[in-house]
Amino acid sequence: MRFATDTAVRERRDRPGPAAVYATEVRQGWDVGGNANGGYLLSLVGRAMQAATARPDPVSVTAHFLAPGRPGPADVSVEVVKAGRAFTTATATLTSGDATAGEGTRRAVQVVGAFGDLTARSASPAGVERVDGAPPDLPPVGECPILVGGEVFPPPFMNWLQLHVHPDDAWFATGRPSGEALLRGWFRFADDEPIDTVALLFAVDAFPPAIVNAGVPMAWTPTVEFTAHVRARPEPGWLRCSFRTRFITGGFLEEDGEVWDESGRLVAQSRQLALLPRP
Amino acid sequence: MRFATDTAVRERRDRPGPAAVYATEVRQGWDVGGNANGGYLLSLVGRAMQAATARPDPVSVTAHFLAPGRPGPADVSVEVVKAGRAFTTATATLTSGDATAGEGTRRAVQVVGAFGDLTARSASPAGVERVDGAPPDLPPVGECPILVGGEVFPPPFMNWLQLHVHPDDAWFATGRPSGEALLRGWFRFADDEPIDTVALLFAVDAFPPAIVNAGVPMAWTPTVEFTAHVRARPEPGWLRCSFRTRFITGGFLEEDGEVWDESGRLVAQSRQLALLPRP
Repeated sequence: MRFATDTAVRERRDRPGPAAVYATEVRQGWDVGGNANGGYLLSLVGRAMQAATARPDPVSVTAHFLAPGRPGPADVSVEVVKAGRAFTTATATLTSGDATAGEGTRRAVQVVGAFGDLTARSASPAGVERVDGAPPDLPPVGECPILVGGEVFPPPFMNWLQLHVHPDDAWFATGRPSGEALLRGWFRFADDEPIDTVALLFAVDAFPPAIVNAGVPMAWTPTVEFTAHVRARPEPGWLRCSFRTRFITGGFLEEDGEVWDESGRLVAQSRQLALLPRP
Repeated sequence: MRFATDTAVRERRDRPGPAAVYATEVRQGWDVGGNANGGYLLSLVGRAMQAATARPDPVSVTAHFLAPGRPGPADVSVEVVKAGRAFTTATATLTSGDATAGEGTRRAVQVVGAFGDLTARSASPAGVERVDGAPPDLPPVGECPILVGGEVFPPPFMNWLQLHVHPDDAWFATGRPSGEALLRGWFRFADDEPIDTVALLFAVDAFPPAIVNAGVPMAWTPTVEFTAHVRARPEPGWLRCSFRTRFITGGFLEEDGEVWDESGRLVAQSRQLALLPRP
């Protein structure tokens, strides 16, 4: 249960004001070259927003990444903007550093999100259902090369996951980028820890950038903005994931993700705007 | 210059505090059945964020729609979260109603965005460029049926635009939905008013829902969350636009937009999460 433990938050009663403040810690080992993975930071914020909104599922969450998150204490401050019938909308800020210890603090992530209860939604008559798409066609897990964590790439948190990449997209195993900015693979936690809807916010940002398969050298691609839509709670088991970049222009690129559960249902979509690494 | 006039904002000096506050007005005629169009409201917020960040272009903007915007006075309050080297990130809230007149006010739109200067970016060496996509293949404007504004649908603001729809997607002219949740068309303002990057925030939400072509009856589809990425300032002339929905599940749907300028360049992408109209 490492992910649940490493994303735990605790409400601070010593911070009066319009915002609810949660203490947390950016744990060691969730970084890429010293900077915490964006989906991991977003999961910390998601846990605090879950608590502050008293709604279990992040239906739509958008993060702007302002500064790298370094291991150590952090606060997440959450302000409810509107508590509606179906959704509660809130803004949140993750500030890293410990102000009480006299250290400098800095805003690392700014978030806005709508939280709701996806079980309640699924149970109600939803009207039209239409799916123009399918889970990625992946060979069995055992035939897909696994990413093993190292010092920088693959990052150390790979050892806490089982992230198996489609053989056609596994340039790290074959030595050959596929030529297409596409990365497909299987995802679960190493100890088969259950994947809740906050963990999906991590899953959609856990894979290496798809542009590596288009021949862009592996490097830090800073995320400007990241949005995830969660459609349903995943069934237990593996996730089938697919990430694609179609447009690299003006130094920007988008990456679109889709995550499907073992029952073949779409559980999340993601899109991020990132900066191309400068040569 | 109706769009520029109807999205003008003016800084209020009578509101001290950490946020810059701008007075504006939700003008008559930009509504669908009495509720202001989301892209129009987002453009009002965009103008205020442009002013508060002192950066001209909305690179990534996300809006959560909290309550319908009705015609009348409104305030946009903007707080700069981080002024960085390339981008300034800010949050903003549009509140409709006039507190000074003793009327009730309510938060209608909550926004987070990163603003920058796209001219400066385009001028710098950007490294890799790669485009896996193309502008929609549209017949000449004269062969594409125009949407003419009415009481509710098409909405009255169509008369201030020239929005011509691909004949295959123009169910309103042919009486036949195409069977595919796809809507392609030409866009410009009626008086050929220049389209700046804030006007792109309107363009990406000006078309009717693509799901009508999949046979979902035309109805109000409430937007939960809307994100636009602006890649470049458009060249003068027509925009080629394309909107598609792939997944209608659990009462949710996404709609993805692409906007291309006359020079054939991708200028914006959009994605929204909306609710399926309940039967």
